[in-house]
Amino acid sequence: MIILGIDPGLATLGYGVIETDRGKHKLVQYGTLVTQPKQPLPQRLRAIFIGMNQLMDTYQPDEVAFEELFFSKNVTTGMAVASARGVALVAVAQRTENLYEYTPMQVKQAITGHGKADKQQMQQMVRVLLNMKEIAKPDDAADALAVAITHANSMAMKHLFRIQ
Amino acid sequence: MIILGIDPGLATLGYGVIETDRGKHKLVQYGTLVTQPKQPLPQRLRAIFIGMNQLMDTYQPDEVAFEELFFSKNVTTGMAVASARGVALVAVAQRTENLYEYTPMQVKQAITGHGKADKQQMQQMVRVLLNMKEIAKPDDAADALAVAITHANSMAMKHLFRIQ
Repeated sequence: MIILGIDPGLATLGYGVIETDRGKHKLVQYGTLVTQPKQPLPQRLRAIFIGMNQLMDTYQPDEVAFEELFFSKNVTTGMAVASARGVALVAVAQRTENLYEYTPMQVKQAITGHGKADKQQMQQMVRVLLNMKEIAKPDDAADALAVAITHANSMAMKHLFRIQ
Repeated sequence: MIILGIDPGLATLGYGVIETDRGKHKLVQYGTLVTQPKQPLPQRLRAIFIGMNQLMDTYQPDEVAFEELFFSKNVTTGMAVASARGVALVAVAQRTENLYEYTPMQVKQAITGHGKADKQQMQQMVRVLLNMKEIAKPDDAADALAVAITHANSMAMKHLFRIQ
């Protein structure tokens, strides 16, 4: 099963693609969609929409997992990120209903076993879980891989409960 | 010239279509796109995306004017509206670069001549300016017509400045 993880953002949207088979995860690809702050908002949103469609075309994910927005202290930034997230969600929803969301807390819990892990611990765990030599960079891409793994593990868990 | 005005929202998005010719405006159509609060966010955003594409197909507007978001006191509502606005903006930006935004203050100023008009004054002015028998309902549709008129008048103004 191919899982696409998304860490939504307007300036930088992180993505991570993994292949998961019976609890074992393999890295496929990770990276970012970047938009230019100089451009008007509609053009930036359009770049995200096009980029998301390309990701869906390229990797044909079976399931897509988003990191849920947590409320920004900066209202303007929060609004911009919410716009970008809406656009990313709609690009996915056009193609599949297999769309899931996880809070940052759920992701930390799933990856490190506790909800208060720091960024470095998270990134090291992602590296180990996917047999990577180096940690994924930038942070947004590492976060996207983390949410993809979180979803993969949550699927495996459901499967476990079902067969018992 | 056909102008589409948009008052963005997640539960209710208002739209208003006018035809403008040398400072004279004619009503074409107005209404709302409504989404169901019971549905998951991605499906609601998808409904808005499809609806916006239908509006673009049906009315083939030359220019599109959005009412700018003002920050909601309720952060959750603000985020939801920002998502919906992002989706509506991208549906337009896929087809035209003639996309404009006006603040609620600019709209009030343009329609009634002062920035502190109340809702009822606004709606009556929209009715008069478009030769309508009744005020447009619901409020979201009336607001969308107001932003379309605002844009039409601002265009007329620019034209005026250019020829002098």
